[in-house]
Amino acid sequence: MRAVDVIRRKRDGDALEPEAIQAFVAAAASGAWPDYQLAALLMAIWLRGMSKEETAQLTRAMTDSGKRFNWSTIPGPKVDKHSTGGVGDKTSLILAPLAAACGVIVPMMSGRGLGHTGGTLDKLEAIPGFRVGLSEVELRTALERTGVGLIGQTSDVAPADKKLYSLRDVTATVESIPLITASILSKKLAEGIDALVMDVKVGRGAFMKSPADARALAASIVSVGNANGVKTEALITAMDHPLGRTIGNSLEIMECIETLRGNGPKDLETLSVVLAARMIRLGGLAKDDAEAERQVRQALASGAGLEKFRAIIEQQGGDPKVIDDLTRLPNVATRQIVKAERTGYVVDLDAEKLGVGAMLLGAGRERADDRVDHAVGVIILTPVGAHLKAGDAILEIHYRDAAKLAHALPMLLSGIQLADLPRAETPLIHETLTE
Amino acid sequence: MRAVDVIRRKRDGDALEPEAIQAFVAAAASGAWPDYQLAALLMAIWLRGMSKEETAQLTRAMTDSGKRFNWSTIPGPKVDKHSTGGVGDKTSLILAPLAAACGVIVPMMSGRGLGHTGGTLDKLEAIPGFRVGLSEVELRTALERTGVGLIGQTSDVAPADKKLYSLRDVTATVESIPLITASILSKKLAEGIDALVMDVKVGRGAFMKSPADARALAASIVSVGNANGVKTEALITAMDHPLGRTIGNSLEIMECIETLRGNGPKDLETLSVVLAARMIRLGGLAKDDAEAERQVRQALASGAGLEKFRAIIEQQGGDPKVIDDLTRLPNVATRQIVKAERTGYVVDLDAEKLGVGAMLLGAGRERADDRVDHAVGVIILTPVGAHLKAGDAILEIHYRDAAKLAHALPMLLSGIQLADLPRAETPLIHETLTE
Repeated sequence: MRAVDVIRRKRDGDALEPEAIQAFVAAAASGAWPDYQLAALLMAIWLRGMSKEETAQLTRAMTDSGKRFNWSTIPGPKVDKHSTGGVGDKTSLILAPLAAACGVIVPMMSGRGLGHTGGTLDKLEAIPGFRVGLSEVELRTALERTGVGLIGQTSDVAPADKKLYSLRDVTATVESIPLITASILSKKLAEGIDALVMDVKVGRGAFMKSPADARALAASIVSVGNANGVKTEALITAMDHPLGRTIGNSLEIMECIETLRGNGPKDLETLSVVLAARMIRLGGLAKDDAEAERQVRQALASGAGLEKFRAIIEQQGGDPKVIDDLTRLPNVATRQIVKAERTGYVVDLDAEKLGVGAMLLGAGRERADDRVDHAVGVIILTPVGAHLKAGDAILEIHYRDAAKLAHALPMLLSGIQLADLPRAETPLIHETLTE
Repeated sequence: MRAVDVIRRKRDGDALEPEAIQAFVAAAASGAWPDYQLAALLMAIWLRGMSKEETAQLTRAMTDSGKRFNWSTIPGPKVDKHSTGGVGDKTSLILAPLAAACGVIVPMMSGRGLGHTGGTLDKLEAIPGFRVGLSEVELRTALERTGVGLIGQTSDVAPADKKLYSLRDVTATVESIPLITASILSKKLAEGIDALVMDVKVGRGAFMKSPADARALAASIVSVGNANGVKTEALITAMDHPLGRTIGNSLEIMECIETLRGNGPKDLETLSVVLAARMIRLGGLAKDDAEAERQVRQALASGAGLEKFRAIIEQQGGDPKVIDDLTRLPNVATRQIVKAERTGYVVDLDAEKLGVGAMLLGAGRERADDRVDHAVGVIILTPVGAHLKAGDAILEIHYRDAAKLAHALPMLLSGIQLADLPRAETPLIHETLTE
């Protein structure tokens, strides 16, 4: 099938046949089509869209361009959770131990942070010694022993996605529902999972800014996941404010441990429990969400989740003593407190601005090849809705470099808003999409 | 200006500012943007379109990416004619001598044939010794001495167009009114002309198959040409049947000479005279089309046009004796006559099929790097509308290679249609577009 004919069909708004999609994806992985033909087709897809059938086919072909894990010899349902990315979103590191403590096998492939959003791999690497680059044998051993394996995307997984994503980034073809769906799900299918809970973030700190866009992406992912044999549900959840009270890799690990100890902030605990419960119910280990949530709450209250996290850390080469001693995690002694300039209610903590501020401190990456400083970040001392007096502390900034602090501070301050009257908040969980 | 931002703007349907268009074109010429970004932008332009202002700016930027001739020291109006390409269309070689005989300076940059359409350069090169690769000094001398210079596109003319055209060809982004307009006119502006007569072909043998598409292209060219300071008019003319009675380079040169001798077929003579008259009137050498046409008819009747053609051939290194002795032109002795299988009217000679048939004989190119055989081709013995008896000759095929003949014959035969009743013909000239 000639590239130019495939491009022309999509350009003219026709649906691509499975053979055309397979040819496109195989060529992306092999380099058989030059980049300019891939780029022209990506733009045609961006502008003309793809049907659910085409998107499902694209996803499958992208998975099939590389390795697909098979954990059928390991007993138990294999279930993952994936988020479209947010600020302070560390639910993965709470729900994976909780779900595993309830019998779910969690082979979780995560990414790194970029821009204002954090990445699970960076957070894990804040734990001294923690290795995310497991071999397949090591991953299998981890899943067998702890029920959880937390790894990065290896180069043999969905190579077509890697190629296409790098092209999309420089050709203004990122924000396309079918292309996003295929990119996310091709890697999730490669994990060899039976079910997937998708957390689609919506709001100022999210990739999807509008509820309509978030719903369209969630619906596409649910449809295409199920079409490819993975039981998929999606929650649309708020990302206007940071999730929990910390932004920054080491600080977020501390917050995860506190949450697994039962001392977590309500929003973070609630979302982690709800997502873990979905994983358990989709995995067939509970008859409904209520029963699943009871199981998760039990694992949290009993400390089984915390002990599972300890086992995961130990299994992947990390220092398990961090569970009992948070001072073993990277930290900086230099702190700065941001205080309220007036009396009033905290009506906004803008997720994107605080995320960019933390990035400027060194907690995140402006470009994909930047290095992160695991120790720095921000602690939110007063959540949205709190009433403050002038001079009360709002943020505790953990910084290493005064110049970076000076750069980050105006951005962080711009994210804080006080007012005389409290403001009605949107709910944490907007909506659930099932097949 | 970052490529990805320019692509995004066009993707979202916004008009591109002059600076964005200049950045794009400069980058195409210099290689500063990688091909995949050019390709993505071309597809976005294909699908989103461009306003007349954007198209005019794109055209100007493409001209400015290379050399622009200046003939202001040569007296007389500089006027060219350009056609979108057809089968048997050899008007350039008739009207250029006629217009020059009436005082017009014709700096004409032409192309080569591809697919079923012929190219002026290939036809000229059928004349023994004729050189289309003139240096600028030689071109200036030719214009000064004969009023005509017939050359190919040199590498320093509109290099951005060359780059973009080669990308469009392989990314299904050829058939776009703004991109076609800019591609054609950027080279015409580079010729340093004051006025342009555009012959937009419509019909089965034309690039534009529908009158609506032809009209849209003609309107765009007229608007953009005038916006860039070149007085531009467009004729929309029929290309359902071949123009004249010959297809094939040497045969077409013979037909041009016959036409300049006053013995040409009516359609070819009429269109050549009409187009030449427009050139004269647009060049300010006649007050209206009727007066201009009288001048052209006079140049034709007096033999001034034929003598001008002789001078042009001599000036560009060709054998001027071909004017008096057509046997000096390349020819083949092997001929095959196609006869009518039934009695009836010739109701169709399909331009595209006969063009492809001639190409298969070797008269044209399937790919841009194929070599052409100047001697082979097809003579149409009975025009559309003629009444034939079974066994009457319709085509005379001049072939060199029996295998190629066997390959071409079914295609040529499929282009001929006889019927009991004659069929109403569309007019040769559909429409004229002026500013």
